[in-house]
Amino acid sequence: MTYRAPIDDILLALNHGAGMQAALAAGHYGDYDSEITEQVLQEAGRFASDVLAPLNRVGDEHGIKLEHGKVTTAPGWPDAYQRWIAAGWNAVSGPEAFGGQGLPLAINAVCTEIWAASNAAFGLCPLLTLSAIEALDAHGSDELKRVYLEKLVSGEWTGTMLLTEPQAGSDVGALRSRAERAGDGSYRIHGTKIFITYGDHDMTDNIVHFVLARLPDAPPGTKGISLFLIPKFLVNADGSLGKRNDIHPSGVEHKLGMHASPTCTMTMGDHGGAVGYLVGEENRGMLCMFTMMNQARLGVGLEGVGIADRAYQEALTFAQERKQGRAPGTKGDKSDPIIVHPDVKRMLMQMRALTAAARTICYSTAVALDIAGRSTDPKVKAAAAARGALLTPIAKAFSTDVGNEVATLGVQVHGGMGFIEETGAAQHMRDARITSIYEGTNGIQAIDLVTRKLGVNGGASVWALLDELALIVKDVEASNDPAFGTTGVKLRDALASLERTSRWLQEHLASAPNEALAGATPYLRLFGSTLGGCALAAEALAARDADGGERYVTLARFFAENISVQAGALERTVIDSADCVTAADAVLLA
Amino acid sequence: MTYRAPIDDILLALNHGAGMQAALAAGHYGDYDSEITEQVLQEAGRFASDVLAPLNRVGDEHGIKLEHGKVTTAPGWPDAYQRWIAAGWNAVSGPEAFGGQGLPLAINAVCTEIWAASNAAFGLCPLLTLSAIEALDAHGSDELKRVYLEKLVSGEWTGTMLLTEPQAGSDVGALRSRAERAGDGSYRIHGTKIFITYGDHDMTDNIVHFVLARLPDAPPGTKGISLFLIPKFLVNADGSLGKRNDIHPSGVEHKLGMHASPTCTMTMGDHGGAVGYLVGEENRGMLCMFTMMNQARLGVGLEGVGIADRAYQEALTFAQERKQGRAPGTKGDKSDPIIVHPDVKRMLMQMRALTAAARTICYSTAVALDIAGRSTDPKVKAAAAARGALLTPIAKAFSTDVGNEVATLGVQVHGGMGFIEETGAAQHMRDARITSIYEGTNGIQAIDLVTRKLGVNGGASVWALLDELALIVKDVEASNDPAFGTTGVKLRDALASLERTSRWLQEHLASAPNEALAGATPYLRLFGSTLGGCALAAEALAARDADGGERYVTLARFFAENISVQAGALERTVIDSADCVTAADAVLLA
Repeated sequence: MTYRAPIDDILLALNHGAGMQAALAAGHYGDYDSEITEQVLQEAGRFASDVLAPLNRVGDEHGIKLEHGKVTTAPGWPDAYQRWIAAGWNAVSGPEAFGGQGLPLAINAVCTEIWAASNAAFGLCPLLTLSAIEALDAHGSDELKRVYLEKLVSGEWTGTMLLTEPQAGSDVGALRSRAERAGDGSYRIHGTKIFITYGDHDMTDNIVHFVLARLPDAPPGTKGISLFLIPKFLVNADGSLGKRNDIHPSGVEHKLGMHASPTCTMTMGDHGGAVGYLVGEENRGMLCMFTMMNQARLGVGLEGVGIADRAYQEALTFAQERKQGRAPGTKGDKSDPIIVHPDVKRMLMQMRALTAAARTICYSTAVALDIAGRSTDPKVKAAAAARGALLTPIAKAFSTDVGNEVATLGVQVHGGMGFIEETGAAQHMRDARITSIYEGTNGIQAIDLVTRKLGVNGGASVWALLDELALIVKDVEASNDPAFGTTGVKLRDALASLERTSRWLQEHLASAPNEALAGATPYLRLFGSTLGGCALAAEALAARDADGGERYVTLARFFAENISVQAGALERTVIDSADCVTAADAVLLA
Repeated sequence: MTYRAPIDDILLALNHGAGMQAALAAGHYGDYDSEITEQVLQEAGRFASDVLAPLNRVGDEHGIKLEHGKVTTAPGWPDAYQRWIAAGWNAVSGPEAFGGQGLPLAINAVCTEIWAASNAAFGLCPLLTLSAIEALDAHGSDELKRVYLEKLVSGEWTGTMLLTEPQAGSDVGALRSRAERAGDGSYRIHGTKIFITYGDHDMTDNIVHFVLARLPDAPPGTKGISLFLIPKFLVNADGSLGKRNDIHPSGVEHKLGMHASPTCTMTMGDHGGAVGYLVGEENRGMLCMFTMMNQARLGVGLEGVGIADRAYQEALTFAQERKQGRAPGTKGDKSDPIIVHPDVKRMLMQMRALTAAARTICYSTAVALDIAGRSTDPKVKAAAAARGALLTPIAKAFSTDVGNEVATLGVQVHGGMGFIEETGAAQHMRDARITSIYEGTNGIQAIDLVTRKLGVNGGASVWALLDELALIVKDVEASNDPAFGTTGVKLRDALASLERTSRWLQEHLASAPNEALAGATPYLRLFGSTLGGCALAAEALAARDADGGERYVTLARFFAENISVQAGALERTVIDSADCVTAADAVLLA
């Protein structure tokens, strides 16, 4: 079955849940003409349904091939990529000075969800290019920008990120790839990188690699890492492609999912060293890399949302079509579709509610980053930047956890058919699995949330957000709408749990850091469950007076009563079980 | 890496958590010599480590082949199967009159876990044979038993269950395969069955199929279904194999996991009809089938436990070996193994605690079934049978949910390596996925728990169990052992939630059945989380005075503070969100 972008849900989430409408009204979006939003998204949905979705199964089944040092993608993929850049989709949020459309990140965020939903393995390629654009635009020299940025923005060339080495995964500082000054301003890079997404492929003429490596005189650890731009083919002065550079795919991984996305081992220096150009300053590569990774983290969160939505749409269709048994309390020979069963309805509601909440959290992150970049008021910019930084780990980890949970529920709704690969439900589960691992595992996101967001500046960005959420809860209660059920009290309780837990963690970060770190993952879940519940409630309040809008009230209620309701237990888990976790060695190593 | 059966944990769970020691002391196990328990389990562990575990990856990678109407299993599998029957493992719990060892079901339950842990796809084959033995022993004629039972008990022939048809999955009553009386006491069967596990293979000379079909004059629905025994090869009067019967594998599925286990489409009647023999009475096939399925449901729960334990063992080893980053608060160049990180410890504890709880719930089910079958006191037998019936859906659904959760955590602990198939972590996740679907989806188990266990006899079996759990909670509190942390209060609260939720569901089953059914899945989780917490606490109380026994206190505490603590939220979910679920169509079908 095909995929249809849920434009109504998306616009509600973007405008009300994520606050884009208010930001527009406050002038934070400058001269962006919001009239075009819906049209752009409708077009994106059409492209996704028509071009990308049909290639999703093909890509999973064919996978990719590495032969004679070259990666070949699945049938139809290079053509689809050319259609993608021809239609301008790669350039949505790129800088206008380099051919980009300069649309808000929030619009690009929706697009990212749509690409991931229609074809996650395809969407991964431009996601990485986008990170490369960010890093080059922020840190590259004018000369590097002149040669490479326009091609990356248009998508004529793709970008990659080369961080990981066998001994350096989450611990980037342990990397060993080395760079030597060539004397002409360029560098020669030697080393081997693993897990390089789209490290090689046949969809474009050139690939622009962004590679972390060490100079000979660099200090140890993360402070001695520099970022280099290494093109697959060197670029001549006239812009034409020159010599093949000394960076080659030497292996590809056999993975659980994302089969159509080549995951390469890249070898540099078999023929004298790869020619590289410094991006930013020597030994300041981590700074540049964080620019790439933050953008990528939001993008990965949106992959979670997209895969979840696709899994939901397919499960819903299956549940309406698959006839099996009869509705409870009815008799007769005629079978009913399985959606009549309360247990199936529960699974579908769970899928939809989780997806909607994760979507809004991701869009909220993008809106904050937009305001930080576009507002002319320094105080507004600073607050928005802090909000974006706070939301990024939640957007990444909560949404990808949701992607996994929803995709496995999708298999369950399909029953035995879900375990058969041709159904397609299992692919979403396989594809989603990497999203909670790459771009910083979800455990690392949780630690980032506790130590670098709650743990800095007195946790000001957390308290500011909680104050806003409290206003939503008040509005829900003030609505006196019985359709909300116990939503108000559930969200109020959740918010209180989140506040108490935040304070406990803040205190323990200083006095007993291991105990605070032990609670990082349940804390992030608590944050996401509370934030998501409030976001859906805000959307319900905005929607309920419109025709058919009451369905958003039921959805918000379901989330509050099934997911936000877990906040109290998560609070107790963070606080009570820290001892157990720190004493775990006695159990694990006995 | 290999698998080691965790004999200490297993014996503690069996003897104390599941109450086998008390049952032995009360004489419920008759003349069973419990001295041999440990020795049998040690031997099983050795066989699993030496013979089955090494074939697990081979099976996953090679899968099976269907060519020229015959299924070929992976290299080494037929040989391993012959070693398996030669060592007598197939006959562990089989009836002694037919060559079985007549050991308790509880011993076989442990073995089932061990086979699943070492090689889930292999273990599936004898699991089905065991169900076939049960049905034939309980319902077959003396003549059928004479010809087939000994061969099934020894494992010389394997057994299958043919229920599902394309239009008849969970709704078995919709099946259309037809049986005609041949006039000589036998029948001729025509029809097509799908999803037949080990429907064909090359590990034995013959396969004994148990097939549900309809007689021409049968009433519609489940009351018109009969069970037939259909051998792959007919058996001559002297016991030698005769003509090939008209039942053939016509297709095999390409599945997410369990690649080494052939899942066949079986066609009967292309050459005049498969010769079948009635098992039990005409039109009473569902009764026989339930005999098979109950045994199988416990077996599938144990698959969940086994896969979870294997995933845990591998993740633990990886976390001890993989060096990456440094322990929080330390400096220097030397990397530490990732197990130093509190977040990694949390994941491993979660894996171990969930596995241990599910294990004990499954063993408890087996002990109850043992007492029901072996005790000489009719009241004891009846109570034990009710207990076994109550626990079966929990053992199946909770344990397989645990299998999935633990396996996906296992991937997470491995980080990027977990997504690469050669690591092996992903296989456990893929293999586990079917366990929450087959032998009755977990949703169906939850409905069974609510309607056929809580909903019958005034819920007497539920109240009797809750009374026992309350005694454990009292003992925890009376211990005054600070190492238990907040275990006592967590379990007391959980028990209170379970009791209130049970009463609410009982009331609503009559007045608003759809609302009760809407809460079935969270209710089963609530039941499992409470029961599991109490079971681990009972084990901790029994173990804590022994050398190193305090680690079981930490484990019980972790479970109570991380999993049982969710009981209150699950109670609210069942009660508060029933409205939402019944109103879901407005959201889902908008």
